[in-house]
Amino acid sequence: MVTVNDNYLKLPGNYLFAEIAKRVKAYKASNPDADIISLGIGDVTRPLPKACIAAMTEAVQEMGEATTFKGYGPEQGYPFLLEAIRKHNYLDHGIDIAADEIFVSDGAKSDCGNIQEIFGQESRVAITDPVYPVYLDTNVMAGRTGDLQADGHFAGVTYLPCTEENNFAPPLPKEKVDIIYLCSPNNPTGTALSRAELTKWVAYARDNEAIILFDAAYQAFITEDDVPHSVYEIPGAKDVAIEFRSFSKTAGFTGTRCGYTVIPSSVKGRAADGRLVHLRSLWERRHTTKFNGTAYIVQRGAAAIFTPEGEKQVRANIAYYQENARTILAGLKKVGLTAYGGINAPYIWLKTPVASWDFFDRLLQEANIVGTPGAGFGPCGENYFRLTAFGDKERTKEAMERIATRLHV
Amino acid sequence: MVTVNDNYLKLPGNYLFAEIAKRVKAYKASNPDADIISLGIGDVTRPLPKACIAAMTEAVQEMGEATTFKGYGPEQGYPFLLEAIRKHNYLDHGIDIAADEIFVSDGAKSDCGNIQEIFGQESRVAITDPVYPVYLDTNVMAGRTGDLQADGHFAGVTYLPCTEENNFAPPLPKEKVDIIYLCSPNNPTGTALSRAELTKWVAYARDNEAIILFDAAYQAFITEDDVPHSVYEIPGAKDVAIEFRSFSKTAGFTGTRCGYTVIPSSVKGRAADGRLVHLRSLWERRHTTKFNGTAYIVQRGAAAIFTPEGEKQVRANIAYYQENARTILAGLKKVGLTAYGGINAPYIWLKTPVASWDFFDRLLQEANIVGTPGAGFGPCGENYFRLTAFGDKERTKEAMERIATRLHV
Repeated sequence: MVTVNDNYLKLPGNYLFAEIAKRVKAYKASNPDADIISLGIGDVTRPLPKACIAAMTEAVQEMGEATTFKGYGPEQGYPFLLEAIRKHNYLDHGIDIAADEIFVSDGAKSDCGNIQEIFGQESRVAITDPVYPVYLDTNVMAGRTGDLQADGHFAGVTYLPCTEENNFAPPLPKEKVDIIYLCSPNNPTGTALSRAELTKWVAYARDNEAIILFDAAYQAFITEDDVPHSVYEIPGAKDVAIEFRSFSKTAGFTGTRCGYTVIPSSVKGRAADGRLVHLRSLWERRHTTKFNGTAYIVQRGAAAIFTPEGEKQVRANIAYYQENARTILAGLKKVGLTAYGGINAPYIWLKTPVASWDFFDRLLQEANIVGTPGAGFGPCGENYFRLTAFGDKERTKEAMERIATRLHV
Repeated sequence: MVTVNDNYLKLPGNYLFAEIAKRVKAYKASNPDADIISLGIGDVTRPLPKACIAAMTEAVQEMGEATTFKGYGPEQGYPFLLEAIRKHNYLDHGIDIAADEIFVSDGAKSDCGNIQEIFGQESRVAITDPVYPVYLDTNVMAGRTGDLQADGHFAGVTYLPCTEENNFAPPLPKEKVDIIYLCSPNNPTGTALSRAELTKWVAYARDNEAIILFDAAYQAFITEDDVPHSVYEIPGAKDVAIEFRSFSKTAGFTGTRCGYTVIPSSVKGRAADGRLVHLRSLWERRHTTKFNGTAYIVQRGAAAIFTPEGEKQVRANIAYYQENARTILAGLKKVGLTAYGGINAPYIWLKTPVASWDFFDRLLQEANIVGTPGAGFGPCGENYFRLTAFGDKERTKEAMERIATRLHV
């Protein structure tokens, strides 16, 4: 009989958001009039910038006329978008990336999930704890790990604990690792790696012939000068790092789907016979074989982000969320709760006086607010709780008032 | 040092369309005034149906207003599209498929490429020769094959030769296989499996506990009653078949990107410990972990295909291409060339009097027409040549006139 990929069976069910939904549903059933504010899911709420709407409206019309209709585009993305990304996100910041080192996709989640395919099965993977689950789950599915252990960690994976003690900056691993996932600004902790911290990692990768998979999906939220927007700001990174970026949180593309991956042609890995292989070529082979390009309409929308009006509108949206982050940080401080993040990221990582899930229940029952228990992102997330700044401004303020007046901390 | 996935290195470069482009470029350089007609790439040319344009225009506007903005949608697709697919493509044809057995994606290429991930590494794969390269290449990348042999076949794969002698209907394999890729109507041969042929395959899969991966991307072009549009028209298929469908060739979505995969909950595979596992659950895990849904705007466009106006407009587009297919078939017959396909598919599979690539050169030089050499789709494609019906009507007619007057066959 046909066999299945047994590695999939190592994964526990995706309980986090399902469990949240279940508890919220139960609470609503008993309290039908409760006015619940969600600061839980990391999804944007502001509409797309008008510049994107105008560009996509025009692109839709193009698709309706034979003379301007677009069929298959280049799998790597249209040159108009590749060039816009190259100029505005790299060249203008002093980083020399070629257009053919950029691969446009339907989002950073796909790319972060698929990238592991181009690496050898025996490569040792390092992830932070807590972590965005996609990095881990896709390596489990690929058979690059052992089984889930009693401590909540998978065997064969190097976990880098990020805690209050190390200011949520992952420590260098004790054993040699080959693939390092770094997300900065970080989901879920909302903290970001400083230039010095990231320099340490680039040095590690160079010294150990490892690869950094750098997820910069939240770079638009950076406010501090000392925090790099791109891994390529660090000298030497172009030999050892792959970068993922997204328009989801930058410009509200969570439901429109567009992101990209940068693989400099200088990044290499070793084949079994010892020769060096360009990772860029392997990714291109994957991208052209298993993907057929992002919708033309969507790419037109994404390119509009880089127009003067687009940039202005994007900055306004980011500022709106950043104000929410300040509201949340101030609100938590007021009631004596310790919180991290929120300065360079849309996430606030709050230290809970009780276990994550108990805090979830109390926040829901006492203040009718939904957030995300830190334990859902890994064992080191226990006693933490994630709140997001992606909500409505007035509702976010109200949530903080409720925390001040209704929550017993 | 980080190692690479060595299986990628087994793949020869993707030479087919690159080689075509190279030869066309060289010809153009020497003959700058040549008026070249392309009947080569399988890409549509008709604009999107007006119903899709209207729906997408509206959806774009929704994305620009806070009250109607859409962030993350369900990874599996919006219920409005799942229900439309279910009703119009299955229930109305007497096939009972549940909405949660349908997974909307960014196209059949992605799904056909990714589906192999959920199967065990040791599963034996059967593909036709000639074949759509995605089925083969993705299994090579996954390490489910040996090396490329001198005969043009990869070791460890079962090839099912489709030739004039068997009327391009793949023969049952001599050895036991686990995963069978069937594409009907077929790319590249343009032929289609009859009900009797497909029934034979479903019986094989049931008897041998194998899975059929049925690519129905071209089903909208079927004109003969005896050719199933869905594998599920065959009794018993719901236990052993996964179906891929696309809006690309149906409604011109090649540059808009939307397709879907159907996995009935009755389709199962075996885990290493012997227990039966629902393939639907494994695919759902993959889909929700490595994909974040198709753009809302695109899904609104796809749903419009199922409105009365949308259906009428889609039928008109298909009829336009079908007329091209008749033009090509008649044109080839007139000059005494033997051709297959074109009745239930947008592809014509022409028997070449010389080797595929020699015919390519003659057609380019003598008639200024570009097509695709059959040898590019597998060794059994040698001495065949693919022409597509996706061109402009007048240009297709002119191509046939050139073949009649300028080609020396």
